[in-house]
Amino acid sequence: MIAAASGLDAPLELRARLADLYAAYDDALGEGDYERWPEFFTEACVYKIISRENYDAGLPLAMLQAESRGMLTDRVAALRKTTLYAPRFVRRLVGSIVLRAIEADSMRLSSSFALFQTMLNEPSEVFLCGRLYDRVADDAGTLRFAERICVTDATLVPTSLIFPI
Amino acid sequence: MIAAASGLDAPLELRARLADLYAAYDDALGEGDYERWPEFFTEACVYKIISRENYDAGLPLAMLQAESRGMLTDRVAALRKTTLYAPRFVRRLVGSIVLRAIEADSMRLSSSFALFQTMLNEPSEVFLCGRLYDRVADDAGTLRFAERICVTDATLVPTSLIFPI
Amino acid sequence: MIAAASGLDAPLELRARLADLYAAYDDALGEGDYERWPEFFTEACVYKIISRENYDAGLPLAMLQAESRGMLTDRVAALRKTTLYAPRFVRRLVGSIVLRAIEADSMRLSSSFALFQTMLNEPSEVFLCGRLYDRVADDAGTLRFAERICVTDATLVPTSLIFPI
Repeated sequence: MIAAASGLDAPLELRARLADLYAAYDDALGEGDYERWPEFFTEACVYKIISRENYDAGLPLAMLQAESRGMLTDRVAALRKTTLYAPRFVRRLVGSIVLRAIEADSMRLSSSFALFQTMLNEPSEVFLCGRLYDRVADDAGTLRFAERICVTDATLVPTSLIFPI
Repeated sequence: MIAAASGLDAPLELRARLADLYAAYDDALGEGDYERWPEFFTEACVYKIISRENYDAGLPLAMLQAESRGMLTDRVAALRKTTLYAPRFVRRLVGSIVLRAIEADSMRLSSSFALFQTMLNEPSEVFLCGRLYDRVADDAGTLRFAERICVTDATLVPTSLIFPI
Repeated sequence: MIAAASGLDAPLELRARLADLYAAYDDALGEGDYERWPEFFTEACVYKIISRENYDAGLPLAMLQAESRGMLTDRVAALRKTTLYAPRFVRRLVGSIVLRAIEADSMRLSSSFALFQTMLNEPSEVFLCGRLYDRVADDAGTLRFAERICVTDATLVPTSLIFPI
């Protein structure tokens, strides 16, 4: 069940629905089931990976930007075909999720994340961490991400960032 | 409160009971109170640590396999007596837990984990990460793990893996 | 929603209020909004950072100890002014939180944490991990920390520990 910002009137049923969305997203990515990833987004959406440095400075330069579910699908196809990087497992942990605002057409949420990667015959290591700024919309009865901005603490991000966050 | 897979009818009371089981387990291990660890399992149970490589390939070779609460108790006794490794603290973080299925005699859940270890006079470091695949049963009114399969991303696991996950 | 120790009668409404406190705290620190940090504590409070080694041995020697909200405010002011360390981002993840006891004037909770730091033009790395032992009180209708003891697994802690945990 998602926690809510102080003073926000967030019904328990909404909190539970949001929790299920986030957990299903985590579960799909945890299984490496990237083909399911685009389904968690609305048809028109924003998915962006940007460094904290650029994000705080208001600079538009992102490491990755997609603006539709189709672009996310393309991205997964590319990820499955690429041979540019060594095989690895990526593990994600997401911290407490806060429902910050309920707006007319969507809700705003934030959380922190850490990614770990494990190369073949190597020990696991920290790979990336940062913050997630999300906008979640009710898409004909199903909650989906209309926007997910992944703000990375590191400015230089390894090429293996082709994995969804 | 545990999140549920899409479409699964999981009553709030069940989700809360599951959350309490997982949190009590985390708390006991967080305190290094390993003597309490076997109590979280049913008398006949499966506790296994296996690499992702072997797990995905369907290979049975596990780093550790126990098939009863008694074997887990033996394991804790061995852990308390061993002098084969340097003293260290192990810290566990578990990500969002998803209730995937409610079956006739048990429930299936999955989550991701990361372990950190801290050797004497050393900084903390990532030690291991992976996925947990659990089967939880109602054992005469108490929820317990009938099965916990710990699938590690790394193929080579340090000897200090004698600690419960 | 916070999980409760076995046998503890913890109403859902209380669990939700506690979850909102913890999530708001995480959110403020996640945003680096340290000026809001002291507001999460009661006027008279204990905030302490101590190594596991000293904590378990009952030694009083702490890396940091504050005994009022004013001391926490001073600490944030010092953190904003210091030029003794290189700029960095600190990322926090907190694991499952257990409500352990409800006492006459406060509640006791525990959890595990991991901190990651990212220096300028460097990859992210594990920085510190350990356990949080909290006492939360109802402060005229608002839940606040009356006590937060941060017990670090590492004995030697980097100077950048000036950041709140």
